[in-house]
This record gives sequence, structure tokens and C-alpha cells, in this order.
Amino acid sequence: MRTDYCGAINKNFLEKTVTLCGWVHRRRDHGGVIFIDLRDRDGIVQIVFDPDNETAFHTAEITRNEFVIKVSGRVRHRPEGTVNPGIFSGDIEVLADQVEILNTSLTPPFQMDDEHLSEAIRLEYRYLDLRRPAMQRNLLLRHKVSMAARVFLDQHGFIDIETPMLTKSTPEGARDYLVPSRVNACHFFALPQSPQLFKQLLMVSGFDRYYQITRCFRDEDLRADRQPEFTQIDIETSFLSEDEIMGLMENMMRQLFADVMAVTLADPFPRISYADAMFYYGSDKPDLRIPLVLTELTDLMQTVTFKVFLDAAQIPGGRVAALCIPMGAELSRKEIDDYTQFVSIYGAKGLAYIKVNDLTTGLEGLQSPILKFLPEQVIQEILKRTGAKSGDLIFFGADKAKIVNDALGALRVKIGHERGFAENSWKPLWVVDFPMFEWDEEENRWQALHHPFTSPKTSHEDLLISDPGKALSRAYDMVLNGVEIGGGSVRIHQQAVQSKVFQALNIPDEEAQEKFGFLLDALQYGAPPHGGIAFGLDRIVAMMTGTDSIRDVIAFPKTQRAQCMLTHAPSAVAEKQLRELHIRLRKNDQPTS
Amino acid sequence: MRTDYCGAINKNFLEKTVTLCGWVHRRRDHGGVIFIDLRDRDGIVQIVFDPDNETAFHTAEITRNEFVIKVSGRVRHRPEGTVNPGIFSGDIEVLADQVEILNTSLTPPFQMDDEHLSEAIRLEYRYLDLRRPAMQRNLLLRHKVSMAARVFLDQHGFIDIETPMLTKSTPEGARDYLVPSRVNACHFFALPQSPQLFKQLLMVSGFDRYYQITRCFRDEDLRADRQPEFTQIDIETSFLSEDEIMGLMENMMRQLFADVMAVTLADPFPRISYADAMFYYGSDKPDLRIPLVLTELTDLMQTVTFKVFLDAAQIPGGRVAALCIPMGAELSRKEIDDYTQFVSIYGAKGLAYIKVNDLTTGLEGLQSPILKFLPEQVIQEILKRTGAKSGDLIFFGADKAKIVNDALGALRVKIGHERGFAENSWKPLWVVDFPMFEWDEEENRWQALHHPFTSPKTSHEDLLISDPGKALSRAYDMVLNGVEIGGGSVRIHQQAVQSKVFQALNIPDEEAQEKFGFLLDALQYGAPPHGGIAFGLDRIVAMMTGTDSIRDVIAFPKTQRAQCMLTHAPSAVAEKQLRELHIRLRKNDQPTS
Repeated sequence: MRTDYCGAINKNFLEKTVTLCGWVHRRRDHGGVIFIDLRDRDGIVQIVFDPDNETAFHTAEITRNEFVIKVSGRVRHRPEGTVNPGIFSGDIEVLADQVEILNTSLTPPFQMDDEHLSEAIRLEYRYLDLRRPAMQRNLLLRHKVSMAARVFLDQHGFIDIETPMLTKSTPEGARDYLVPSRVNACHFFALPQSPQLFKQLLMVSGFDRYYQITRCFRDEDLRADRQPEFTQIDIETSFLSEDEIMGLMENMMRQLFADVMAVTLADPFPRISYADAMFYYGSDKPDLRIPLVLTELTDLMQTVTFKVFLDAAQIPGGRVAALCIPMGAELSRKEIDDYTQFVSIYGAKGLAYIKVNDLTTGLEGLQSPILKFLPEQVIQEILKRTGAKSGDLIFFGADKAKIVNDALGALRVKIGHERGFAENSWKPLWVVDFPMFEWDEEENRWQALHHPFTSPKTSHEDLLISDPGKALSRAYDMVLNGVEIGGGSVRIHQQAVQSKVFQALNIPDEEAQEKFGFLLDALQYGAPPHGGIAFGLDRIVAMMTGTDSIRDVIAFPKTQRAQCMLTHAPSAVAEKQLRELHIRLRKNDQPTS
Repeated sequence: MRTDYCGAINKNFLEKTVTLCGWVHRRRDHGGVIFIDLRDRDGIVQIVFDPDNETAFHTAEITRNEFVIKVSGRVRHRPEGTVNPGIFSGDIEVLADQVEILNTSLTPPFQMDDEHLSEAIRLEYRYLDLRRPAMQRNLLLRHKVSMAARVFLDQHGFIDIETPMLTKSTPEGARDYLVPSRVNACHFFALPQSPQLFKQLLMVSGFDRYYQITRCFRDEDLRADRQPEFTQIDIETSFLSEDEIMGLMENMMRQLFADVMAVTLADPFPRISYADAMFYYGSDKPDLRIPLVLTELTDLMQTVTFKVFLDAAQIPGGRVAALCIPMGAELSRKEIDDYTQFVSIYGAKGLAYIKVNDLTTGLEGLQSPILKFLPEQVIQEILKRTGAKSGDLIFFGADKAKIVNDALGALRVKIGHERGFAENSWKPLWVVDFPMFEWDEEENRWQALHHPFTSPKTSHEDLLISDPGKALSRAYDMVLNGVEIGGGSVRIHQQAVQSKVFQALNIPDEEAQEKFGFLLDALQYGAPPHGGIAFGLDRIVAMMTGTDSIRDVIAFPKTQRAQCMLTHAPSAVAEKQLRELHIRLRKNDQPTS
């Protein structure tokens, strides 16, 4: 139907006759001539309709925004003074010879170049929202990322193997989406939370290198930027150490960024232990664009009389730490109050601070409600350790370590970005040496920090039982600019080790057999050493496009209430369908819409 | 951990030291020396353990089949007389220097090179079944096909866009798999039967060229070779005619076969109308490897007295046709009875025949129970039209056209393969000019032959209402060796035409709006002319690998009872899960396992 994309036309086409198809982006009548900006996925080109060509002119007259038209014409220079250097086709235009309306359009509910749309109307008219150049770019970039990942993985011997979507419910981790079986009455499939067990089985099968870009499902309470279904770049390999896996995976990420973004990432990525990440950044996904780090003060506060600091320093698992903000002395009372409010989200009961107005005048130059509770040598040591300079401000956190880390870690990121300390760059790193387990206060038992198939460090196998809290794993997370974009580990390939982990997690044999029996069986038939990783594709693409919301990089996302505004899914279904599936609705649970 | 794959070692590695990891495929003690065939995904290499190297030898002694080991050693020529030219590494072996057992294995329930396994045991121990070289090859080939398709589509400007898995139930076509929503009480998602509506919306959005290799779900009564979930190469384009789409798609298929199979497919693919396909082959997916065609006799039987033929010739929609089998006169009574039994599956009430023993002796040379009912000039005309030669046999079908076509069409394929008429080759074609609708006897109404979004031929739009049975569509099926591997069409892009089709299908406006409202709305906002196709990946790969069952090209398939023998999905779930999903089990529907 056409010879070229609209967006491809430039000076190289001068004097050529082209046929273009696209949407009427905008129509202007100007000096008896009609101008149409014609848009397709590649861009926009200006079409001119001269009244001398009556047929074409009259057709152009009846077009409206978003009509679909086909135009043939000659490419020519724009007249002097009408050149638009801002766009690719800005110095040419197409003089229309023939035009045909391929389809009409109602007046759309919004302009395609409006950037201030409510998300509700965007999701309801998603097919129009996706016409907007920003959304076209997002999904095109997403395609490029997937394809670049596939090419890299294919070149490195990874085989794309599809694993089932209708699989078994294992109520571990998040809630499953269930699918009632018609053929097997009263039984249910579950949609996969990840292909974890299947990819491990594929290693037992000897496929050696597996990957899949695959949909995963979690029926979680939806937070700001979560989707019921999301996409993982899922990878597993055999006979590689964690160093080799990490090396290969950062090569992949460097190639993706080079291919798609023309960005060069660090080589190698820095690696930091979980313990150091918490110590310096209060977070297991540190944003390295921000140069600020926490200062440890727990040891220093063992003997002070200031009860808030003393208690935190003395309770087991307590921490006192500081965050020094360069030029923070200029913060207003209101700003400090806002930050105090902010850290309270993380459970912090307050946010003590010292303003370092002028170091040259000794303690006189400091300003703080807590100065009077601290001995001078402690204050001097705080100034020394934080490296505070005149004009800085020091914030303090004192509580259980988790609260201090969460609060100061989040404050570090917030202030880092708000006050311009963050570099405008891409800062990837690996976090390694994670603990195997974390203590679940509510359930009063150890939980796997990653998942129960994560291998402990070889020398830590005995700790699994004797001191589970000290056992470190062979897990690794890839973090980029403060976001965990991938997580993986070397897995357990020996059944004896797997049993010890279940024992540490207090999972009885029968329960393990019931849930994961097929994996445990498989481990007994020559399972090779193996490990892998899974990357969150939605999140990576969102970061690359610079959007805050993964909904902007998913063609048809759900709302936070897990609804599709376009198709109105989920919806009521016919009684006959339920009967076939051997289920009925609960009487008192009314449909909400 | 290793330097190379086992299967990669050949003469080029002579005198080199390699480190290999893999599975003990077979161990032999021979003349005081231990030989281990070491297997990985790439192939097998022979390792020799000399008793002089005591440590390695003793480790080798305790290995058993399917142990995972790591071996270092020097590559050397096999001694004279022990060379095995049948395998890639057949003229070399690795003299083991060091060996380490990475994991042990229980005795597997079957040998990895056993080719006579029951499917039950294969599916239960799928992780071992997938170790078998045949299955490794199948899944590797599947990966190559997907990747080749992606590369082709990417190079031709197609964008991989993911569409939702949790979508809306539209009880049309097959039964949906439903997913109860927890957040939206008493409402259900459906798993997609295909991304049809979403890909059309993406065309409305201007993406121009879309593809996705995606999972689809149909809760159908399972026939021999169906799976509840299957994979489609799903494609849609804008601004292309059906000729252009077909041309592009056969280019893709030619490239897949060239890249993956080193097979050159016809260029261009032959095209045949639906009417001709039925006329000549009794099938809309003719197997062109078989040169036999049906012979039309309906006109000839208008005046015979033989009631079976006369009735079929005279009823509306009746057909009398013949299938001439070269050298078929040698068929035994028993063989003819078996074929008669075979066609009865398709509703044929009998299978009349004439044996053409000797044409030189006139009617004397023919042998048939029906000869006496047919006038001589009719018999002569039958011989002339079928082109029967001495030694041939002519089968007859006389009934409603559907029964005649189904019966003789199937018989043609069966005899073609059984009696050696089928070429050993790849014979693709397009079937085009399908009817828009077929009459549903049970429901007493027209049904869409493809789906209700298929565009009628432009000149047939008026027929939609005046004579729906005569309206032809712009649909096209790609057929390969008697199997429909892809089906598609130019879609309706104008709402007025879509309404007419719904009218012909007797779908009221409200129902159409309820089910497809979002598509109908979208068509009003500048939908471009568009069309596409979907290929069945499982089927294509099964054909390429030469297996009869798509289960052999799916890593973790379901049984015909839609169960996974490995994970035991579907399974019973906790009452708490059902409560959260606002459903309960029907009291009288008992679990079946």
C-alpha cells in the first residue's frame, strides 16, 4: 500500500514520489493551502494540499484528526522560513498528488501529543494512549531490550525452553492465582510465580544453559508499582561458579545498555557484601549515584547517658548511625520536620540532628537539641567519623538495626536526589554474601531470604543447623541505581544439603515431599551443580525509558485494583461455566462491580 | 569448571588437555581398564581410566550410570581397531588424569538410550526423559525455530509486544480457563485463547507490525494430540494486502526451513481455493505429497437408477465422487473391508468400488458389485474421468458433500501413505477464498468459519446479509503436508462491516458490545486496514523433528487427562485459598484423585 514510513522521509527523498499511510496528527488551513502532519510509528511528515489539485484538496478538507489516509506525492523542499529543524523531516514536505481516506475517526478524547492525561482515561482508551509517540517509543525500546537479551543468550549457548503456565500450587512466598480444572473435579492449577523448579529440573535434564522471557504471576496486595502479571528474563546454567554466572550476566547487561541505550556500564560491576551494604547504605540495594554513606556510632554510644542512643547501642541487634548531609545546616525547621515525618514511615521514632554551623568556633558552632546529652569527646568523635565540615548537618538513627537502616537508608536516597547529590549516571553493582535466612518475628521461625533452593556457602553447611542466622548463601542480586533488577544464586544440587535447609526452615519432610517432591526426587538422579538468575524486565525497561511506572512499559496493564480498564476484566461469568468447573460463588461475597 | 563440551571433542583436540563435566552414560571394565562414555548436551566422549593412575581409577570404579563427574585428561587417538566412525568423537578418547564425582545418582528407572519407553514412565520421570538425546535434540530444534522466527520478524520490522494472560472471558469458540479474582469478588479473569483482540488493538494503536511467540489456552475436550496450553507465533500487520502478508509469511517459513532444516521450500507456495481443495482433495488442508485426486461424478449420476448414487447426486449439497487407486486391483477383500470400516468414522455408509482388472477386455475386465446398476456409458465415462488403467481400483463416495469429502479425503491420505504414493518431501501451500460462514446444523445458524473479525472480500460485503453462504472471506491458511500450520486473514477495520457480520451471525448488538465492545469502540477511532496470521509452533516443530506427538516437543506437557504426571498438577488446594477467592467446591463433585 505504501512505499515508505512517514518518519523516514527526509532530504534523501527530494524530488521522489512516495506513497505514505498514516494518521492525521494535525490539520491546518493556511493561506488557502491545507497542511496535514501525517503520523505513523516512525514519525511525522508534513503533507501539502494545493487547491489546484481539486480532488485531493477536497478529500483533505474533510479529514479530521486521527483519520487514516493514504497519500501519494512528490517530496520537495519546504519554502524558506518554514523549515523546522526540530524534526527529522523538518526541511521537506510532500506535495500531495492523490489521497484516499482509509478510515474515519470519531473525535478522540485527547490529543496524541497531550502529556498531561489522567491515567484513568489513558487506560480506558489504551489503544489511543498507545498511539502517543512516548508510548510507541517505550514499547519499541522494550522489544529492543528483549531481542538484545535473546541474541546475547543465544550466542552464549542458552536455549529458550518454555515451561508450563498451568502448574502446581505451592503456597510458599506470594499467593497463587488458581485455575480450576474442569476435567479433574475440585482440583486446581496454579499460574507460576516463577519457573524456579522447572528450570532446576531442566538443569537435572542436562540442558546446561536455559533461558526464557516469561510471564510470572503473584496475587499480592498491590503496591504502587506492582502488576499481577510481570515478565522475567529467567536464566539457569550448569557447571558454573557464582563468579562465572555473575561475569556472564554483567556482560549481558553491559551489552543491553550498549545496544539499546548506547551507554557503557562499569566493567566489572563493583561487588559489595550484604553486610557492607547495610553498614554503609542501610540498604541491600544501594543507589551508588549518591556519594553519601552512613557512619557507624554504635560502639561510641555504649557509655553515653542519652537514653535513646544508649538503649539502641546496648540492645542486641541495635544500631546507632549517622548520616552527614553536606551543606545541610541550611535546612529549615520545616524541612527537618518533613524528613522526621518521612523516616517515621520506616518506624523511626525521631530524627535527631546536629547542625554544624561553624567548626572553627568549637562546640559553639554546633546547634542541636541533643548536644547537652552528649560528652564533648563523643561529639568530637562524631565530627571526626562523619567528616562533617562547616555548613553540614548530621542526622542520627538509633533503634533496632532494621529500623535505623531502613530509615537512614531511605533518607540518604531521598536527600541525595532532592538536594542534588545524585550523579546523573548508571551505577550497577552486585550485592553478595547474603544471609541464608532471616528471622520471622511474626511466625517465630527462620525464613529463606531468597528461596529454600539457594545453596549455602560450602563452608557454611554446618551452620545451617548450629547457627542458622550466621549461614551465608551463594546468592547475588544485581542492583542498578538503587533498584534490584535481578536476583539469583547457585542452587542446592545435593539432596542432603536440601534436607538440612528444610530442617533449618522447620519444614517437615512430608510437607517438603508434598510440595517439592519432584524436585527432591530429581536431585537424587545426578543433578549437576547449577545456578541462575531472574531479571525483572518491566523494571529494567521502565528505568531505561525514564518512567516511574512499569505501567508505561506494559501494553495492557492492570490498575492497582488488578482490573483492566479497557476490557473490564475480571468480569462476571455464566453460571454454566462455574458449574463445569465444579465451583460456586460464596453466597455472602458480593460482586463489587 | 570445564574447558569444553564432551560432544565437541574430536581430532582437533589431539594432545590437548581438556576438562569435561557430564553424566556417566555407560561404564565398561575391559582388560583391566575402565571406559566411561561421558555425556553432556553436546554429545558423548570416551574417557579411559588407566589403573596406573590409582586415584582416578578408584574414583572411576565407584561411579555408576548417571553419576555427574568432572574429568581432566589428555585427548589421544583410540587404539587401532577401536575407532567408532559412527560418532563425532569416534576416533579419539580422553585419558583421564583427574576425576571428581560432582553428584551421585540412584539407578535410573530406564536407560538413556532406550527407545521403547512407555509414555507414563517418561512423563513421571520427565527430568530423566529429557536427558535422552532425542529429547535434547527436539527442544534444541524448537529453540532454533523460535529464534529464527524472531530474527526474521525483527529484521522485517515486527515488534514483539506482550499481551495479557489475565484477560476477559469471551465464551466464543472453545471453553475458557478461568481465574477467580481475589480483589474483585466473584469476578473472573480468563486465560487467552489467542491474543486476537489485543493484536488488533495494537494495529489501531499504530504499531504497524506486531509479533509475539505466546502461550494460548483452550479448555477443550482433549483429543489425541492437543494440549491445554500451546504456543502460537502470533503476527499482525497494517497497510498490507493479503497477497503481501502471504508473501512475507512464506518468506519466513522458507527461511525457518532453510536455517533449521537446510530444506528449500517451494517459492512461491502454490495457492488453491477452498472450493478447489474440497473438489480435488476433499479437504481444506490437502497433503500435496500424495498425487491422487478425487474425480467429480455428481453430474454423471443425475439419471442413473442406482439409488445410492442417484440420491446423493440429487439432494442439495450432495456429492458423488471417485478416488482411483493405481494398482489398487490387487487389494484383498480384507483390505477393502478395512478401508470401508475406516471411512465409516467419517459417516460414510459404505465404500463402493470397481476393480479395473483388465481394460483391454471391456466391461469383462471390471469387477464390482455395483456394475450391474450402472449403464455402460456411465461406466465408460467413469473410466475416462478417473483415467483408470488396468490394475487400478476406483473407490466411490456418495452422500452429503461433507461426508464424501471427509471420507474420500481421509482415504486418499491413508492409502497415499500406506501404499507408497506419498513423496518424501515438504509440500507447503496456501488455501484461500474460504467461505465467511458455515451452517451450524445443531444451532441452526451461521457460524464464522474462522472468527467474526475476518474481513469479507470487498465485493462480497453485500452477500453478508443477502446470501451469507456465498460470501467469501479474505482468510488464508498455510498448510504443510496435510497439516494446517497457520491460519490468518485480513481483518475487518470498518465498524459498519463488523456490524454486518455480527448481524449475519445473529449476534445482537448488546451481546457484541458486551463481549467485544472495546474492539468495536477502537474501530471507530481510526483503525487502519490490517491483517495477520497465527502459526502453531508445537505442531511445526513436531513435524520438523518427525515426531507424531506434540508432547515430544514440549518440555513439560500434560496428559490427555490434562494432568502433569511430574508435579501432579492440578491438585487439591487449601480451603483458605478458596475462601480468599470467594468460591467453594460443589458438594457433589468429588475429586477424582
